[in-house]
Amino acid sequence: MGNSVNWHTLFININIATMTDGSNSYGELTDAALAISEGKIAWIGQMADLPDYNGSILEVIDGQGCWMTPGLVDCHTHIVYGGNRANEFEMRLQGKSYEEIAKAGGGIVSTVSATKEASLEDLVKSALPRLETLHNQGVSTLEIKSGYGLDTENELKMLKAAGKLATLSPVTIQRTFLGAHALPIEYKDRPNDYITLVCQEMMPAVAEQKLANAVDVFCEGIGFNLDQTRAVFEAAKANGLPVKVHAEQLSNLGGTALAANYNALSSDHVEFLDEAGVKAMSESDMTAVLLPGAFYFLRETQLPPIDLLRKHNVPMAIATDANPGSSPLNSIQLMLNMACTLFRLTPAEAIAGVTCHGAKALGLESTKGQLKVGYDADIALWQIQQPAELCYQFGVNPLKSLYINGKETIF
Amino acid sequence: MGNSVNWHTLFININIATMTDGSNSYGELTDAALAISEGKIAWIGQMADLPDYNGSILEVIDGQGCWMTPGLVDCHTHIVYGGNRANEFEMRLQGKSYEEIAKAGGGIVSTVSATKEASLEDLVKSALPRLETLHNQGVSTLEIKSGYGLDTENELKMLKAAGKLATLSPVTIQRTFLGAHALPIEYKDRPNDYITLVCQEMMPAVAEQKLANAVDVFCEGIGFNLDQTRAVFEAAKANGLPVKVHAEQLSNLGGTALAANYNALSSDHVEFLDEAGVKAMSESDMTAVLLPGAFYFLRETQLPPIDLLRKHNVPMAIATDANPGSSPLNSIQLMLNMACTLFRLTPAEAIAGVTCHGAKALGLESTKGQLKVGYDADIALWQIQQPAELCYQFGVNPLKSLYINGKETIF
Ligand SMILES: [Zn+2]
Ligand SMILES: [Zn+2]
Repeated sequence: MGNSVNWHTLFININIATMTDGSNSYGELTDAALAISEGKIAWIGQMADLPDYNGSILEVIDGQGCWMTPGLVDCHTHIVYGGNRANEFEMRLQGKSYEEIAKAGGGIVSTVSATKEASLEDLVKSALPRLETLHNQGVSTLEIKSGYGLDTENELKMLKAAGKLATLSPVTIQRTFLGAHALPIEYKDRPNDYITLVCQEMMPAVAEQKLANAVDVFCEGIGFNLDQTRAVFEAAKANGLPVKVHAEQLSNLGGTALAANYNALSSDHVEFLDEAGVKAMSESDMTAVLLPGAFYFLRETQLPPIDLLRKHNVPMAIATDANPGSSPLNSIQLMLNMACTLFRLTPAEAIAGVTCHGAKALGLESTKGQLKVGYDADIALWQIQQPAELCYQFGVNPLKSLYINGKETIF
Repeated sequence: MGNSVNWHTLFININIATMTDGSNSYGELTDAALAISEGKIAWIGQMADLPDYNGSILEVIDGQGCWMTPGLVDCHTHIVYGGNRANEFEMRLQGKSYEEIAKAGGGIVSTVSATKEASLEDLVKSALPRLETLHNQGVSTLEIKSGYGLDTENELKMLKAAGKLATLSPVTIQRTFLGAHALPIEYKDRPNDYITLVCQEMMPAVAEQKLANAVDVFCEGIGFNLDQTRAVFEAAKANGLPVKVHAEQLSNLGGTALAANYNALSSDHVEFLDEAGVKAMSESDMTAVLLPGAFYFLRETQLPPIDLLRKHNVPMAIATDANPGSSPLNSIQLMLNMACTLFRLTPAEAIAGVTCHGAKALGLESTKGQLKVGYDADIALWQIQQPAELCYQFGVNPLKSLYINGKETIF
């Protein structure tokens, strides 16, 4: 007689990419089974090792040879915003001058004013289809940044909209406060005054109202310099919030190394990162978040230092960076293809990028992004014959079903 | 009292991109209406000019300010095939050598043998999700090529599978016989013998059984030379079939100019086409079919001669080229973004590429691809504020509904 088990759901006849081996392999278990109990993974192993289950299993699902991966993690998005930038996109392709486009209200300024004009409900309404599209592609955990409000009221409104989305969707949502995304026009020539506002007014309010899980800064020539970035990190520390950074996208300013001093979760973009910066990341156990959608959309030519990141064992996450300006590409499955096609990652690296490494970029590596006993039962089932298919082909959605915390949310 | 009309469906309060002006503009009609009768467009115009309708209209649909375009045309696909090439994709990214990949069965050879092994039913079953994905993105007319059978039985099987798909889906399917796609290994060093088989055995069977609307050839160093291409065109002419060509993708061999002599419908790829070739296209009223998916996936750097095509008024179509080797990208909406981002087409040019010019590449320009009285009522309704949004953003599917020959097929 077997032991009595207390499983809610048992998947049998599946192949599992556990993603417990980083990007070294898929951590494959073929001809396998996985059991869920109370929203967590209770058992995982080969069919041959499955205990003689005769307890109170509510459902047994025959996977018929499908592949299972962790639910996908999109660890860097800006899906909450007002308006869109189709007009500017079209004018640029029509050969209109920079001045004409600026006059017509192009650039981040237009997104900031559309975001300010939008009510919290408007923001939720426009972001929900983006969230649902990602969810339908297998995303079980999603990060959302603020950064188009650029004043206390509107930054908080964005974070509250992201919080409202979390109540409307089963997707686990992590919020990041990115008040230091761009300099608002009211603070032209007074960036330090704006940083003071970010640190002394916005950040305490965000922390007090528990509106964010982390703090981000755009450290760049067109963003904020190292001193300003340091000030934001200090404020985050004082408010008990972990940090991350948009850095080395257009130049090598040193934002990543600075972030490493603050035990940052991740540095994102990093096209211009040098070996010293990569070493700094490695030493402080940071994750590099690569954003192939922005690389594609901006027609960048400088590739991120993939070989250096490999050499120093820096985990590479992949995310959509979904945003209206530089990556209006709301598809994690497309990012898997672009990570391989444009950045030449292997499929195992790309899939690690949207599972275990994506979770690590959010500080969730001990509960999400891997299929392991005790981890959250965030599970995607795919109608594919090998994991590489998730990266190789794009268009037909191979997702068969998705479970978040043990509950089926897509079927 | 108004005239009695006999409309089946009337859309009111819509904005229409009629696409009747080529790529010069969207042919916009704002605050407009469109009526369908017996599967054709019966009336189109501004709301203010709508006759006092009191006849037997079965349904009136309030578009609430949505945009309407012609149903999309994907005029170049290879969606019928066996197997996939994920394995080869992964090996290449893992740095495996050409020999190792060839040994593991890489390249078109692997698709040919998987296609041969597949039954007609298998081919239909694997192609149907590709077709349905494109349909869900707004495609109302789709071309499918043969070319992975490379013997009479299997080329005919592919075309019959495409014919079967046409009975399973409301999408209008045009079939193209591409026996001269690649040299089968059995004919190694005997390409002329294979061309003889294509012309004397396959082509008459295809024509007699009415399995194709057109004939295509891959004219390239790695495909067939000019003499071989000419022989296929002559056979097509003898069998009463119009021709098109895959040409100038990797080198400037002159396939496009040759095709122009045969009044070809289109030349497809054309990255290496020179001004003489462009002029030849212009003089024989050919369409250039641009395939940004293959350009992206193969990481090509030679752009098609867009400015020359514009200068000589050669219509530019855009298609997915969906195929397992060079463009495993089954998304017409992604191609709209890639046409603009990678080829720098304007949104109006890109949308013309998947409507009026796509239809022209298939010889269907007098019934499809435009919203015009008397044309087939192939109509897409989009939840967007301006047509350029169809090109600018990707991911959230803005399709609200699709009508093919006046019947709602996606809602
Ligand atoms: Zn970003
Ligand atoms: Zn092709």
